[in-house]
Amino acid sequence: MVAGEKQLIERIRRVAGASRDVVAGIGDDCAVLRVNPGRQLLVTTDFTIENVHFRRDWHSADWVGRRCLTRGLSDIAAMGGEPLAAFLSLAIGPDLPPKWVDRFLKGLLHLAAEFRVPLAGGDTAQSPAGLQADIVVLGTVPRGKAILRSGARPGEYIYVTGSLGGSAALLNQLKQSRRSRVAHSRQFEPQPRLGTGQWLSNHAAASAMIDVSDGLSTDLDHICHESHVGATIEAASIPRARIARLPVPLEFALHGGDDYELLFTSPRVLPAKIAGVPLSRIGRITKSRGMRLIGPDGVSRSLKPGGWQHFRRK
Amino acid sequence: MVAGEKQLIERIRRVAGASRDVVAGIGDDCAVLRVNPGRQLLVTTDFTIENVHFRRDWHSADWVGRRCLTRGLSDIAAMGGEPLAAFLSLAIGPDLPPKWVDRFLKGLLHLAAEFRVPLAGGDTAQSPAGLQADIVVLGTVPRGKAILRSGARPGEYIYVTGSLGGSAALLNQLKQSRRSRVAHSRQFEPQPRLGTGQWLSNHAAASAMIDVSDGLSTDLDHICHESHVGATIEAASIPRARIARLPVPLEFALHGGDDYELLFTSPRVLPAKIAGVPLSRIGRITKSRGMRLIGPDGVSRSLKPGGWQHFRRK
Repeated sequence: MVAGEKQLIERIRRVAGASRDVVAGIGDDCAVLRVNPGRQLLVTTDFTIENVHFRRDWHSADWVGRRCLTRGLSDIAAMGGEPLAAFLSLAIGPDLPPKWVDRFLKGLLHLAAEFRVPLAGGDTAQSPAGLQADIVVLGTVPRGKAILRSGARPGEYIYVTGSLGGSAALLNQLKQSRRSRVAHSRQFEPQPRLGTGQWLSNHAAASAMIDVSDGLSTDLDHICHESHVGATIEAASIPRARIARLPVPLEFALHGGDDYELLFTSPRVLPAKIAGVPLSRIGRITKSRGMRLIGPDGVSRSLKPGGWQHFRRK
Repeated sequence: MVAGEKQLIERIRRVAGASRDVVAGIGDDCAVLRVNPGRQLLVTTDFTIENVHFRRDWHSADWVGRRCLTRGLSDIAAMGGEPLAAFLSLAIGPDLPPKWVDRFLKGLLHLAAEFRVPLAGGDTAQSPAGLQADIVVLGTVPRGKAILRSGARPGEYIYVTGSLGGSAALLNQLKQSRRSRVAHSRQFEPQPRLGTGQWLSNHAAASAMIDVSDGLSTDLDHICHESHVGATIEAASIPRARIARLPVPLEFALHGGDDYELLFTSPRVLPAKIAGVPLSRIGRITKSRGMRLIGPDGVSRSLKPGGWQHFRRK
């Protein structure tokens, strides 16, 4: 407990929200939660570190807060699960204005309210400098129904929700224009695809799933690695985000991060929209290992994971 | 994912251990866990931040790793629970030698093995400098049996396990002697009191409980605050740690942190040892609010929370 922490905890406690599954929340050694019989527990943790995942002079505080929780909720979506509760560990340096922290929490809690996820605990600490936040999200899924990365089989279709590359393209614009702040239109607010993930789980429609947080090429490689398969995707089928009505360059849609769309495999032909979110069929799983991209010219080339490194100060 | 992270994740995956309750561990979007019917879930998160909670030139890497997990396990003990799984989010700066990180993990995993707690997931990230670790520990407790901070009633006895003030006294010696490293004898290795906590839960013997991580005066104040009561404790009854056969000054036992003993209340007279750990009866809960300390001179004085601020660089 350091100076200012008590006020911070009280502030979080006031806005944290309630849930019948949270038997005891903030204010004890542990939170106590109810897990319904017949369901298994999902757990994910994600760091948000200043000057690694965001820059205060580039990203707005509420966007950073929203993205922080999106990362956790998106992991729950990628298992086909329902969120149960979130926990926030927050370390704050003396260089952070209290108003910035307020707006960070506001962005995070706005998204929590949208999906009715209670903030049930966490930790606060002083940091030497900047903000370090670790978000923990718990969720549940019916027993044996979690959609893993390891279930893809040769011949299955590869699908992706929404559109890709928007975040990476915006960041690139910013770097080139040297503007002082990313203009985050609502179009590019991170959206965890919880409804789509649950539909896929309820309909046993996906054999393997991951969320696109590191970029399509990297995350597809994770599915291939865990499922011991390969993949071929078509450039023309990859849904590219649009900025000022123009689709972003293919490179951003292939290797950009921070998209939080769902990437999954299925033996079935699925509807064009699931839970209100457009779906694109972009390729097929292959028996031969490695990834291939069929270009706009119809030629198939080897595709390597793009190695998206989040954002880094040069 | 940044350079070196893949190797780190693989290293953790190899040593992480298994458990029948971990259905899917490291290597997917979420870990999948089984929670037995009839039990409720406990969740705790704790930050460990370089130059806030430890200093690399003062604390050994394995001690920092052990303390990191101890904080989480001790919170589970303070609810009377059993640990289910741990999750480690680890951010590492370029200034940290890989050997140091290895020894940090070794200290943490040694304690995990001691209590058969599987490391079921987490996150890794680059940090601008130093080490930031967030440990998440999940546990379970029979439904309705979690021992909260809010159950203390006037007239009940106040107990504490083990001895207090050892960590604070050692740190003070170090500051004064300007030695380069704390000589951590095994005597002062943090010990989460899981066996004692579970005994108290199984025997419905404790009405309120907390672990002494911020110091006796601060943690007793938390019980009083949440239970809407006061407390009187006797200086002569407080079990003080011994260094070179001499008891540490009362001040360290009252206000020092990092002890990880259990502080609890009970209407019953309890044995002198529980699960192998000595027990001391140090006072009683009072109806009148506020805390009082009866000194060695028999005089009762007001006792304020000591406001232990962890370790901070001056």
